Amino acid sequence: MKYLITGSNGFVGRYFIEYLKNNEKEAVIYGADISENSLNPDITYIQIDLNDRFAVYRMLEKIKPDYIIHLAAMSSVAQSWQDPAKCFLHNTSVFLNIADGVRELDIKCRILSVGSSEEYGIYDEPMKENFVLHPKSPYSVARLSQEYLSKLYVDYFNLDIVMTRSFNHIGPRQNLKFVIPSFVHQLVKISKGKQKDIKVGNIDVVRDFLDVRDVVNAYYKILKNGKTREVYNVCSGKGVRLRDIIEMISAKLNITPKIIVDNNRLRANEIMSVIGDNSKLKTEIGWEPKYDLQTTLKEMILEII
Amino acid sequence: MKYLITGSNGFVGRYFIEYLKNNEKEAVIYGADISENSLNPDITYIQIDLNDRFAVYRMLEKIKPDYIIHLAAMSSVAQSWQDPAKCFLHNTSVFLNIADGVRELDIKCRILSVGSSEEYGIYDEPMKENFVLHPKSPYSVARLSQEYLSKLYVDYFNLDIVMTRSFNHIGPRQNLKFVIPSFVHQLVKISKGKQKDIKVGNIDVVRDFLDVRDVVNAYYKILKNGKTREVYNVCSGKGVRLRDIIEMISAKLNITPKIIVDNNRLRANEIMSVIGDNSKLKTEIGWEPKYDLQTTLKEMILEII
Repeated sequence: MKYLITGSNGFVGRYFIEYLKNNEKEAVIYGADISENSLNPDITYIQIDLNDRFAVYRMLEKIKPDYIIHLAAMSSVAQSWQDPAKCFLHNTSVFLNIADGVRELDIKCRILSVGSSEEYGIYDEPMKENFVLHPKSPYSVARLSQEYLSKLYVDYFNLDIVMTRSFNHIGPRQNLKFVIPSFVHQLVKISKGKQKDIKVGNIDVVRDFLDVRDVVNAYYKILKNGKTREVYNVCSGKGVRLRDIIEMISAKLNITPKIIVDNNRLRANEIMSVIGDNSKLKTEIGWEPKYDLQTTLKEMILEII
Repeated sequence: MKYLITGSNGFVGRYFIEYLKNNEKEAVIYGADISENSLNPDITYIQIDLNDRFAVYRMLEKIKPDYIIHLAAMSSVAQSWQDPAKCFLHNTSVFLNIADGVRELDIKCRILSVGSSEEYGIYDEPMKENFVLHPKSPYSVARLSQEYLSKLYVDYFNLDIVMTRSFNHIGPRQNLKFVIPSFVHQLVKISKGKQKDIKVGNIDVVRDFLDVRDVVNAYYKILKNGKTREVYNVCSGKGVRLRDIIEMISAKLNITPKIIVDNNRLRANEIMSVIGDNSKLKTEIGWEPKYDLQTTLKEMILEII
């Protein structure tokens, strides 16, 4: 089977490649990303700007993949407020280039279209796939468009697309601009006496964190067992307060840090609680998470200590 | 008051300018469109590619309009299937350039964002603004995105945006690629003995046609009396079968044409019936239509006979 992973140099892309190597020895893996070199030397790498429609077509025609795992995206809510038009270009338009390529070149493949928990908007309870969506940022409108378009391409062009709404990911090697790696990094520094206090944003928000290895396991299983045109939440099903994560990490490091709220880290209109319901993924796909939060946090500490 | 009309050379744009000239003598009118010259010589015209973000900013900074009537769009459903990415560029991205310009330059103005009946999808009854939307084409997803984004820009940036979902327009000077002008054109030819039969697509579909002069009257009134962040259906409230329109025109011309179905004019997945409910526009805005279908058709015949 030939797999094409867009955004293959990204956090999830790299783990997906590792997952494939460990679980499907005969997989032929192609990675596509914007940077010059692949972060993984054992795959066939294509440097590409996915906004270049013809480059996308040439790539698809050459590879004729059986599966496309479309991970490339501009996935920052904050950035989407700074440049909403760019957000649509790097999410909706890029997705359309791929879907149109598959349609026009008549490639028989299954596409995994990744969406976001951000599409739901504000709910007090664990969000289910059938909830009404209330996008609250340009990023979430772009993701919602991608979902609508995916369904149209299935209905009218018989494309085989499966979709996710993915919640927060965490794991070793995650970029420091994300909240949990930032906590781990700061707290390890404090434990070594290199930093005094931990600087945070709003740590009373509740989020649903899933280990990136459970994420890629879910993506793989959705590709294999998912139903065309269906959307699956990818999440742990548990809400955790950021404040409690700071405590968990601090306990492992045997420190009691002083917490300083940094106004620059506060976001306007932040959604207080985001928790997903993963029963569809468990029941219909046969997925179970393998990493608990404590294990993941421990690995994230060990990685840099 | 300074009015900026994007798409000022378009069918609706030209009528909106006429409406302003007749109803608000002191209005200062700016028109913006892609072609070199204005079709109306009495306005201040800006030739512009609205995808050029900086050109949009310069234009807005120079004019500082009180009202923006954003009519420029790629509004063909058929074209949106041929090039969906382009459809997003010419609808969503263009709208974002304008909204971002207003936001970043802090211009105090009201924006009219035009949406489409296509956003609704399939309903058996007259569609109301509070119905759940089921977009069935890339065009309708793009329009729906524009609506979501409009609401976000009101909620988070305090922009003053009013929205429409506009149904089919008709009137003199409408482009022949649209169904009613094509009927009128063919039937007049038949009445003059220059054509034998009328070639049609699916004429059993029901649509809600509103005279373009009633449309611009609605747009003007929504600008003046509409509530920020609200969406208003702009429609006649009546469904008419295309077959009946052919009969009305034929009766006026005293002909009994032979109708030939041309397979090239049949569209896949055409929605059978589209009728809007205009009670919100009537009750909350104080709008009433002035043209009935028979009058409009008569004028469309007289224009070319």
